[in-house]
Amino acid sequence: MDLPYPCLMFLGDVDRVSAKTASGVAHWRPDACLAQLRLPGCEADLGLPDMTPKAAQAAGARALMIGVANAGGYIPLHWEAVLIEALEAGLDLISGLHTRMADLPEVAETAKRLGRRLYEARNPSPAFSVTGTGEKRTGMRLLTVGTDCAVGKMYAALTLTQELKSRGVDADFRATGQTGIFIAGSGVPIDAIVSDFVAGAAERLSPDAAPDHWDVIEGQGSLFHPAYAGVTLGLLHGSQPDVLVLCHDATRTAIDGLESFPTPSLVEAIALNLSLAALTNPAVRMGGICINTSRLSPEAAHACLRETEAALGLPCCDPVRTGVASIVDGLLARRARSDAA
Amino acid sequence: MDLPYPCLMFLGDVDRVSAKTASGVAHWRPDACLAQLRLPGCEADLGLPDMTPKAAQAAGARALMIGVANAGGYIPLHWEAVLIEALEAGLDLISGLHTRMADLPEVAETAKRLGRRLYEARNPSPAFSVTGTGEKRTGMRLLTVGTDCAVGKMYAALTLTQELKSRGVDADFRATGQTGIFIAGSGVPIDAIVSDFVAGAAERLSPDAAPDHWDVIEGQGSLFHPAYAGVTLGLLHGSQPDVLVLCHDATRTAIDGLESFPTPSLVEAIALNLSLAALTNPAVRMGGICINTSRLSPEAAHACLRETEAALGLPCCDPVRTGVASIVDGLLARRARSDAA
Repeated sequence: MDLPYPCLMFLGDVDRVSAKTASGVAHWRPDACLAQLRLPGCEADLGLPDMTPKAAQAAGARALMIGVANAGGYIPLHWEAVLIEALEAGLDLISGLHTRMADLPEVAETAKRLGRRLYEARNPSPAFSVTGTGEKRTGMRLLTVGTDCAVGKMYAALTLTQELKSRGVDADFRATGQTGIFIAGSGVPIDAIVSDFVAGAAERLSPDAAPDHWDVIEGQGSLFHPAYAGVTLGLLHGSQPDVLVLCHDATRTAIDGLESFPTPSLVEAIALNLSLAALTNPAVRMGGICINTSRLSPEAAHACLRETEAALGLPCCDPVRTGVASIVDGLLARRARSDAA
Repeated sequence: MDLPYPCLMFLGDVDRVSAKTASGVAHWRPDACLAQLRLPGCEADLGLPDMTPKAAQAAGARALMIGVANAGGYIPLHWEAVLIEALEAGLDLISGLHTRMADLPEVAETAKRLGRRLYEARNPSPAFSVTGTGEKRTGMRLLTVGTDCAVGKMYAALTLTQELKSRGVDADFRATGQTGIFIAGSGVPIDAIVSDFVAGAAERLSPDAAPDHWDVIEGQGSLFHPAYAGVTLGLLHGSQPDVLVLCHDATRTAIDGLESFPTPSLVEAIALNLSLAALTNPAVRMGGICINTSRLSPEAAHACLRETEAALGLPCCDPVRTGVASIVDGLLARRARSDAA
C-alpha cells in the first residue's frame, strides 16, 4: 500500500486513548504527519500545528488521515463534513475504521467528482481470506500479547523489531492493526477479517522464512477481553509463535471501558496464553514482559520492573523508558545455545 | 428470511461429511427437500429422487439449494454451470457458502436477466456488526460446544430444544451456521461475521428474555481446532452460557482433516470450555455430553455412553440413539431447586 504522505492528522473529538492511531503514526512515522485537525472537545494533542484542510494542503499535505481507533470503528455522522471539506481542499482520505468511506454516499460522490482517492486500511485484501491449516512454518516468530487492549502491544513489537535489526538480525515487523499498517505500509487488519479466516490470515502474514529470521507480530486484543478474545485466539493460533512477549499497563485495573472485568494478573495471563498457544506450537515460551509505566514516577516504574522481573524470572522492560535490550538478549542467547547444540 | 421451499438439493461432488448442510435440512425440514442433484464422484445420498433442475421445477421445486459445507466455503468453478442451468430452469438459488453468488458474474447476470432471486445465508445482516459489551442478560442459555467440527453440535441443540418444548418449557433454537439458519429460517452465520464483532453478534442473537426461557445456541468449531478456535471463543464469550453441552464423535481420533491434531479428551475439553466461558459467566456449568455413536454397534454405543456417564458424573446421550431426556431432566431439576431456594 503506497500511502500519500504527509498527512493532516484528524483527531475528531475523542479522548487520548482513542487517538492512539494518530499518536502511533506520529511517533514512528514523523515524516507522515504534517499537522493536526481537532474538533471541539478533543482531548488528544500530537504537538503538531493545528491546521484547516485548506491550510494543510497549501503547506504540502497530500491526505487527511482519520487517526482514531474508536470502539466499533465507525465514522460518526458529524465527521463527514470534515471529510468532505478535506476532499474539496485537495486532500485524499486515509482511514482504518470498519465503516468504509466508500459506503458514505456524500463522501464517495465528492471523492469521485473531484478525482480524490479513498484509502481504506481496514478493508482486507482477498488474499487473506484463507482457512488455517495449522502446518508448522520455518523461521522464528514472536507475538506480543496483552492483559488488555491498548497496553502497548504494537509499540513493543516495533521496538523489538528495531532492537533485533540493530544487532544485525534479519527481522520483520508484521502489522495486524490499522496503526501498524499505516506505519509499516503493509499488513493485515486482523479484526476486520471474517472470523472463519483469522487464523489463516495470520498464517499467511508470517510465511515460511529462513531459520534465523524473526517475524515480530503485532498482537491484538486480549484473551481476557469479553468482546475481542476470539480475535486474539485466532491470531495466536495462526501466528504459531515461538516466543510470546506479554504487554501490560501498570496502572490498569479493569479492562478498558468495561469496569466489571478486572485485568488479569501477569501470572494468569502468562499461563492462559502459553496453554492456548501450545495447540499450534507446543514449544512456545515466554520471552519477557513489557510494562507501560507511563503513569508512574521514574522510581516507581523502575521498582515495578525490578519486582516483576524477580517475581516471574523473566526479562521485564518498559519499551519507552528502558528499551527492550534484555528481552532481545534472551532471544539471541537462546538461539545461540540451540545453534550450538 | 422467507426461503423458497421446497428445493432441489445440490450435493456437488463432495463426501458425506461435506454434505452435512443438505442432510441436516433433509432431516429437520423434510418439507424443504423435494429431490437431489449429484455430480459424478459425489459420495453423499439423501435418499431423495435424483432430478435435473428442469424435472425438479416441473415437480414443484422453487429453488436449488447448495447443500454443501466445504472447507473455505467457496463455490468451485465447475458448479457454476449447474447454478446457471437451475436459474434457466426457473429456480431461485440458496447458498450458505462464503463465496457470494452475486459475485459470480455469469450467475449474477443470468439471475438478473431472468428475474430469479439469490439467497445468501452466509451474508450477515448489518444488525450483527456490533461490539460485545460483556453485560449480563436475563433468561437461561445453553450452548453446545465440541471436541471438533462436525460432531453433532447443531443436531444436539435442535434435539435439546425439541425436548425442552415437549416438556412445556419456553425455548428457542438459535442458529449460528448455514444449515441451522436453513432449518430455523433465522440466525446469524457466526463464522462469516467480521472477527471484531463475533462476540457482539452472539450477544445480540440471544437477547434478554424471561427468567425461565431457554435459548439453545448452536455451537461452532472447537477450541481445539487450529483454524476455527477463535470463532468458537467469540461465540462462547458472547453467548454467556449458563450451561454447556459437550458434543463428541466416539470414533474421531484427530481433528477432521488435520491428522497431526489429536482430538482432546472429554476431560480436557470440559476443563478448557468451562474455564474460558467463566470470563463472561462465572456460574457456567456442564449440563451433559452428547456423543455421536453412529459408527458403533448398538452394544458398543450403550457401553460407551454408560462408561462416559460413570467416569464424568454427567448425563451422557447420543441424541439420535437415545434422545436427550436425561440432560433435560438435569436442567429442569436444577432450575426447580433454584426456584425453590
